[in-house]
Amino acid sequence: MAENAPQPRSRLASILNAQSVAVVGASADASKISGRPLAYMLRSGYRGKLYPVNPSRSEVQGLTCYPSLAAIGQPVDLAIIGTASAHVEGIVREGIAAGVKAFVVFSSGFAELGTEGRAMQERLSALAREHGVAVVGPNCLGVINGHTGLIASFTTALETTPLRSGRFSFVSQSGALGAYWLDIVLRSGIGAGQWITTGNEGDVDAAEAVDYLVTDPNTEVIGVYIEDMRRPEAFRQALQRAARAGKPVIAIKSGRSQAGAAAAASHTGALAGDDALYDACLNQYGALRVDSLTEMMDAARIFLHRATPLGRRLAVMSVSGGAGVLIADACESLGLSLPSLEAPTVQALTPVLPAFVHPANPLDITGNVLQDTAVIGGAFRALAADPGIDGIVLFIGMMHSIADVFVRELSDARRDIRCPIIVVWVGALDESIQALESHGIPVFLDIPQAMRAIAQSLQAREAQRAASALPAIPAPVARRGAGEAISEWEGKQWLGQCEAIALPRGRLWVDGEFRTADVPPLPVGADAASSVRTAGAESSMELPYPLVAKLQSRQLLHKSDAGGVILPIRDAAALQTALQRLGDTGRNLGVPVQGVLVEEMVPFDHELLVGLRVDDRFGPVLTLARGGVEAELWPDVVTRLMPLSATDIEKMLRGLRIARLLDGYRGKPPADIPAIARRIAQLCDWFVQQPIKELEINPLAVKGSDVWALDALVTPFAA
Amino acid sequence: MAENAPQPRSRLASILNAQSVAVVGASADASKISGRPLAYMLRSGYRGKLYPVNPSRSEVQGLTCYPSLAAIGQPVDLAIIGTASAHVEGIVREGIAAGVKAFVVFSSGFAELGTEGRAMQERLSALAREHGVAVVGPNCLGVINGHTGLIASFTTALETTPLRSGRFSFVSQSGALGAYWLDIVLRSGIGAGQWITTGNEGDVDAAEAVDYLVTDPNTEVIGVYIEDMRRPEAFRQALQRAARAGKPVIAIKSGRSQAGAAAAASHTGALAGDDALYDACLNQYGALRVDSLTEMMDAARIFLHRATPLGRRLAVMSVSGGAGVLIADACESLGLSLPSLEAPTVQALTPVLPAFVHPANPLDITGNVLQDTAVIGGAFRALAADPGIDGIVLFIGMMHSIADVFVRELSDARRDIRCPIIVVWVGALDESIQALESHGIPVFLDIPQAMRAIAQSLQAREAQRAASALPAIPAPVARRGAGEAISEWEGKQWLGQCEAIALPRGRLWVDGEFRTADVPPLPVGADAASSVRTAGAESSMELPYPLVAKLQSRQLLHKSDAGGVILPIRDAAALQTALQRLGDTGRNLGVPVQGVLVEEMVPFDHELLVGLRVDDRFGPVLTLARGGVEAELWPDVVTRLMPLSATDIEKMLRGLRIARLLDGYRGKPPADIPAIARRIAQLCDWFVQQPIKELEINPLAVKGSDVWALDALVTPFAA
Repeated sequence: MAENAPQPRSRLASILNAQSVAVVGASADASKISGRPLAYMLRSGYRGKLYPVNPSRSEVQGLTCYPSLAAIGQPVDLAIIGTASAHVEGIVREGIAAGVKAFVVFSSGFAELGTEGRAMQERLSALAREHGVAVVGPNCLGVINGHTGLIASFTTALETTPLRSGRFSFVSQSGALGAYWLDIVLRSGIGAGQWITTGNEGDVDAAEAVDYLVTDPNTEVIGVYIEDMRRPEAFRQALQRAARAGKPVIAIKSGRSQAGAAAAASHTGALAGDDALYDACLNQYGALRVDSLTEMMDAARIFLHRATPLGRRLAVMSVSGGAGVLIADACESLGLSLPSLEAPTVQALTPVLPAFVHPANPLDITGNVLQDTAVIGGAFRALAADPGIDGIVLFIGMMHSIADVFVRELSDARRDIRCPIIVVWVGALDESIQALESHGIPVFLDIPQAMRAIAQSLQAREAQRAASALPAIPAPVARRGAGEAISEWEGKQWLGQCEAIALPRGRLWVDGEFRTADVPPLPVGADAASSVRTAGAESSMELPYPLVAKLQSRQLLHKSDAGGVILPIRDAAALQTALQRLGDTGRNLGVPVQGVLVEEMVPFDHELLVGLRVDDRFGPVLTLARGGVEAELWPDVVTRLMPLSATDIEKMLRGLRIARLLDGYRGKPPADIPAIARRIAQLCDWFVQQPIKELEINPLAVKGSDVWALDALVTPFAA
Repeated sequence: MAENAPQPRSRLASILNAQSVAVVGASADASKISGRPLAYMLRSGYRGKLYPVNPSRSEVQGLTCYPSLAAIGQPVDLAIIGTASAHVEGIVREGIAAGVKAFVVFSSGFAELGTEGRAMQERLSALAREHGVAVVGPNCLGVINGHTGLIASFTTALETTPLRSGRFSFVSQSGALGAYWLDIVLRSGIGAGQWITTGNEGDVDAAEAVDYLVTDPNTEVIGVYIEDMRRPEAFRQALQRAARAGKPVIAIKSGRSQAGAAAAASHTGALAGDDALYDACLNQYGALRVDSLTEMMDAARIFLHRATPLGRRLAVMSVSGGAGVLIADACESLGLSLPSLEAPTVQALTPVLPAFVHPANPLDITGNVLQDTAVIGGAFRALAADPGIDGIVLFIGMMHSIADVFVRELSDARRDIRCPIIVVWVGALDESIQALESHGIPVFLDIPQAMRAIAQSLQAREAQRAASALPAIPAPVARRGAGEAISEWEGKQWLGQCEAIALPRGRLWVDGEFRTADVPPLPVGADAASSVRTAGAESSMELPYPLVAKLQSRQLLHKSDAGGVILPIRDAAALQTALQRLGDTGRNLGVPVQGVLVEEMVPFDHELLVGLRVDDRFGPVLTLARGGVEAELWPDVVTRLMPLSATDIEKMLRGLRIARLLDGYRGKPPADIPAIARRIAQLCDWFVQQPIKELEINPLAVKGSDVWALDALVTPFAA
């Protein structure tokens, strides 16, 4: 899709609900790429009109065949094209002329193959834009509607497994991953809603596809596989709409690793993204990021059965004590709790349980239930009545001889009780799984998968709630490159315009006198080192000791490492010496020096790193981290896309491990986190108005509700 | 098993290879607990003699039935007992009299049920010890030999799935987990070697069972589920023997969580262990600790096919670029590398690959292989010839139409190439999996499971190598409880006997004078606070400034928090004031004061926490951690069981994150890690000779190769 062009919402609806489909180059051979869509649709029960197009045949797979799109003479909603790339443009032109509204282009040989292909693809995109038609692809595996049986795809996933409908839909930038997803959902019985592979995204892209699924009544859960986010604002908007609609989005974003990023670049021709920003974007707008299709299916299983617990307090009932303990172990590491049972629950359980079973959470009902199945329902309902419980996990191992009792008791209970039920059943029979899932009870085959999915479902719900409340996403602005970084002195004068952040009082020692501000930046290359003289330093300074002195040069951005910082300076004699030594240092380094910045040393309790930058892909971004020397050893970083409210920033701060330090840990005075967050929010608002590519304050000194930028590194936009 | 009694190695061999088995209380009903073992063995092809014992029947399941064990009149290797608990002792006595060598006792109602049951179990244990017979159980699910078809078990796992032999064996303290394990290995085709559930461990315990499996020729991989380690030294010994034999041990230890630990206690009546020590024990002696049976099966799949890569450098070949990137992502987070291909490899690949495929790692051979299957073998062999590659991961998605090509090419290659092959095949058919695995190529159904198992297999091999080299495990000594902690001054005088650790020079200010040592510890309750006088403090001290002054009392072990520490003291006047103030503090706190410890302040670069203690279960244990205020925020701890060599301790230090600080990070001078490790090793050797329950040095100051105990907390054994 063209950058940021507004798209009518109905484009993908008209493709996926197409009533008439032409297949260009249709083959009689059902195993060929150009034969499969017809063969699949003839089998799937698709009720729309099918028009094979092939000048060399009059009939294909039992259907009347037309020599061209124009020759059909009937309205055509969608044309499928799988010819050699060189012919695609002509066929699309012909289709447009014949009134075809949309195209799915399988053909490869476009942008993924270099300059010539890219030019061809751009012509195709322009054509779509110009005539208001939608194009999926090129170089894609097509689209499928699991509910109408529309199969505009040649995926081999349908060769052995028939299409079945479901409420889980998928958008994939990789055809292969799309096929694997389809294979898994069809074979596992989950079923497919809509299935959209976007290929090279010459026109329709993943953001538009996700956005469409938010409105699709047959979609309850959205899966996405992305390698690249071409229109990040549109993607954020789509995720936010999904959040507001309460439709969970489960995303795989490949390229976490360096190696992975390199491979992604060579794979799709897309620029490799910065993984941390993708992560921020997905988390912030409520998508659940997972690493594999297996993990995606596990989470979807919870969502599809609306089995996300009401909160983090679970009750566990198990036919094995050992398994109960393993579940408790998993809960702890995932932040789920197993609260003690309320007294009335214990009272209700006692008469139901055998004498040797202790009412507790986890509740070990023991293998004895094989002989005494009445325990199952009795214990289960007593647990479910506990108001302190947000969800129940039941562990079963085999026990096929009483499988029907479990199915009956749980299905009955699911109708009556307020909290969801999740079953872990080692060795479950397929029919037991189907029976339970038909009653809204997801079944997992081992503990870790179930517990992770439960924790993720809670996390996703919280993330979607937070995403719904985020401010409106601004329209994208053209990204600009970075210019040259300026010195701390210059950067602080700039930053001084922002009222939210205090600066230590400082003077620039230049030409033998102290200046307070408005020193015109020296042209790079000029050498002012000789002008640093120390005579009379004390007289005009008016700053209280102790002081810090820092050599200023645009070519010396990491001053400490080069010996360009002296502190603490406790008296006039030490100041004289420091100015002298820094002058010498500047001369020895041979860099153009603006002067020496002398600043008061502000007393503070905590240090933060605050980074703001305008990312080439994601636009303005805020990074908060622990400051100080050991920051790299114990990384403690959070990154979010702007706009961000003070509340959002407060959450970011509280998400850092150093939040415990900020709260006043082991005798350290606490910081006023809400006040700090408000100041950083004001800084963000100011930042996005400035022609600055990047601003790093490290450290930002914190004391109570006050903050000082002790150092600042500003990189303006390129001129 | 009796604490630490030496056990003949053949006890379990004689049970699992029993040639004659009596079933006491044998039932004609194959669905009953006392009917199943016979029914299972009649079906499994067990070739030993079977003797049903039941006074009320002359025939059971087609076999001659005997009225009593004595009536059999033939040698009986093993008797199975599943009667009510009250009858067990009598039957065992009768069996011993009749010459029965071993017993498997299913019966519950022993130690798990309280005092009376515990007494019955102790009598049973004594009987076994006295007569030299082996008893498995009571309250166990029995034992199975997958190779002979011996099924001394009533597990329902065999109701629907026949026994099949394999090389994976399992020891379980939980019958239920044992049954689930059996169900999974039988249904997945892995097959079972030996299967031993130990129940209440009245005689045979998990340590003995693991030890036996090390020598069992039918066992290649050992799985263990433990809730409690009753004889930790024997368990360590067994793990070390497995390591030396190169038999991987994969362990699940439940009770990681607090909640889990509580549930474990109520479940087995065993004391809950300290999870960190279990973790240390398992890791140190080469066991791979996993969290679930699924994870255990994944790891076992690599081990059973001897598919552990030769090292961490993997080549990845994939039919999907996206999947290749996901594998690269997984590798990075698991510490596996995907090196660039060597030039000859690239040269060898180029003619084999289609023009549009770039030779790289991961190698995307694309869906084009469906049309051009020759690429598979060609590319695979070129990759395998790369000397910089330790293992090859091949990703396939469906592609059932060319499954036979993959199977053939890979099976052929596996015979010839030097490095293992691991296949990830999404949507694999069962026959493809079986065919590949029969050729030593493990197949996984998704990426994360495969990559985790690969990383774990490497980790386990390294751990077993390290475990093989560990010093001999000392015989267990009786554990002793903790007495009362002594003051820093007393503790340092004690620690002063250990030459490895330096102490800051110090004097105890008491009764108006400085003492250097040998102050008799004050009886607790005596009040010496009034004796702290400051007159003439300077004259007798002979320590250089700056100094630190610390109030000494056995009832003030956390001195800093109570204002009991003053530093830095820079001159005589400050010292006078400090002594005065600490005297006041002692009086105000109302604790019995020994005096004020005045010490020189040693300059240092790094701080460690060193903890040594004699754990009630595991004996002497060493803990190393980051010292300092933020230690709790960024936990950085390693714990190992003694004995430990200097090399072991060096590895512990290098395993800490602060190792980077110790190595000299960002301008900090480096510490001499090997020298520090030697000093700590000497401290350990000294410690185990002392009647000390716990010694904590926090901080241990480090500078170069020198260390000083700046503080020391010593808790002697109880008198």
